[in-house]
Amino acid sequence: MKTKIIRLLKNSDGFLSGENISDEFGVSRSAIWKYMNTLKEEGYKIESVPRKGYRLISSPDILTLEEVEEYMNTNFIGRNIHYFNSLSSTNTKAKGIAIQAKEGTIIVAEEQIRGKGRLGRSWTSPKGKGIWMSIILKPRVDPAKVAKITLIGAAAVNQGLKDIGIKSYIKWPNDIIIDGKKVCGILTEMSCELNMINYVIMGIGINVNLGREDFDDELIDKATSLKEVVGEEIDRKKLLAYVLNHFEELYIPFKESGDISKTIQVCRRESILIGKEVRIINGDTEKSGKVLGIDNEGQLIVEHGDGSIEELFSGEVSIRGMEGYL
Amino acid sequence: MKTKIIRLLKNSDGFLSGENISDEFGVSRSAIWKYMNTLKEEGYKIESVPRKGYRLISSPDILTLEEVEEYMNTNFIGRNIHYFNSLSSTNTKAKGIAIQAKEGTIIVAEEQIRGKGRLGRSWTSPKGKGIWMSIILKPRVDPAKVAKITLIGAAAVNQGLKDIGIKSYIKWPNDIIIDGKKVCGILTEMSCELNMINYVIMGIGINVNLGREDFDDELIDKATSLKEVVGEEIDRKKLLAYVLNHFEELYIPFKESGDISKTIQVCRRESILIGKEVRIINGDTEKSGKVLGIDNEGQLIVEHGDGSIEELFSGEVSIRGMEGYL
Repeated sequence: MKTKIIRLLKNSDGFLSGENISDEFGVSRSAIWKYMNTLKEEGYKIESVPRKGYRLISSPDILTLEEVEEYMNTNFIGRNIHYFNSLSSTNTKAKGIAIQAKEGTIIVAEEQIRGKGRLGRSWTSPKGKGIWMSIILKPRVDPAKVAKITLIGAAAVNQGLKDIGIKSYIKWPNDIIIDGKKVCGILTEMSCELNMINYVIMGIGINVNLGREDFDDELIDKATSLKEVVGEEIDRKKLLAYVLNHFEELYIPFKESGDISKTIQVCRRESILIGKEVRIINGDTEKSGKVLGIDNEGQLIVEHGDGSIEELFSGEVSIRGMEGYL
Repeated sequence: MKTKIIRLLKNSDGFLSGENISDEFGVSRSAIWKYMNTLKEEGYKIESVPRKGYRLISSPDILTLEEVEEYMNTNFIGRNIHYFNSLSSTNTKAKGIAIQAKEGTIIVAEEQIRGKGRLGRSWTSPKGKGIWMSIILKPRVDPAKVAKITLIGAAAVNQGLKDIGIKSYIKWPNDIIIDGKKVCGILTEMSCELNMINYVIMGIGINVNLGREDFDDELIDKATSLKEVVGEEIDRKKLLAYVLNHFEELYIPFKESGDISKTIQVCRRESILIGKEVRIINGDTEKSGKVLGIDNEGQLIVEHGDGSIEELFSGEVSIRGMEGYL
């Protein structure tokens, strides 16, 4: 009902009379009045003039479906948005509902109290300043192929940023880099049986409108935000929608036939690692080498000092000389 | 406290005076009396004689730590048993506590209302007649290696059965077979990031004392119980403990260095598939071939009709001519 009223207000040029709205939905005018008050509390600026009715002046900067959908062209990714003011972490929330949820359902929170990065690290997620979300996916593919989905996420964010005029780099397999600093990280988690995925949760955190003061000492040299990069506030709604649009476009061929060729093209073209000397940490082992490329399966091709070639499926990669940063 | 009283009663030959017990634990004699009543309600037969005290006549057939521990020689597997009279499924319960739980914690239920088999199938789990349990594991290995853990479970059940004098066969990768019928299934589920396991849940269901009436029409030709096989009731406590003992012995080398050589030895020696013509279903594809063996990584080696050799990491395998059964 609230959703319908917002849509009606948005699609209307001038005033909408309370009578018309109550006729449209078959509820009383005092019910309409109550809905309008709720919307005002949520940050909608609504002008109400006696005998004329209601008019939407402005919408709040929140990432609800009603606010994001006008920029979306997806069929199923993001068509169901569970929106929260505050969560411990969107991945944790997503896990709680994943079994029942439709594929493509997303969890969005304005802030995360315990935002998570990879390997148990924390992720700074201050209120209203980022896109903190998790996408629930249920691909019928072998669990061993799930690493590819992270690349789809990285490519989608990179392309979404391009749509709003921001050039970024992909640091295989799960980070987005601008000016040598991280603006986005992806945390893919999975629940599976031996040869069947129950669900995949892809957490995507994008530092949109954070200021210097939002990063603590540890992050100040390693992380940045889009606002810092371009010098002005970025429209989170558009960016979220654009990322979802690209995600669906890249995900559908993977889901249907395992095809990630478009994703790989993006990951190669926008890679920050190809050609670089890197260190690779995998569990307790550390190696160094030079990144030659990304193969058609999404694996990183690394040449070691002794001339041997290795294909990596996952791992922590840092550029030599920038350890601790990139 | 209850645990301590049970242990004291078990370790005592004759009567234990209420006074001695209350001195030992520093609680009142009426508190002791209340504990004894609780124990009686749980099925413990306790004789109480004025001026002599309490004596344990018999323990109930339940799978609590107090009842199972006397047969256990493990360090961490099963040293923490969460025991339930009834659960939806032990795997589901285990997932709910896995993040916080210590490795080796197990969930045991006397019955499962919605016991789960692989690929979303159901698993019949009537009250008090089986071992329905889930082991929580946290190996620091690559998620891709988790299939091997299922083999450890299968080998442990096979060896536990051997300890009580029952010969069984392992149907790679997750079933135990006697007389051509299933007596045990293993459902391994995992939560992971790309290169880090959060936890593994290994659900093990063993049909111990089920009768023909416990199997519905669909299962009657495919499943059996230990009681049916040997013609008498089997001690569930001993069997559970023996399975856990073998599990820990086989799991420790895997956890510490990825070594599953002992497990592979058992899986080869006790295999029902090696040498057989089989059909293999993996997702939407079906193939047939002859099983040549199990390699050192735990993969099934299959020779196809055209002479090509394939190593399988997982899959549904059925013996030709026995489809729908084995």
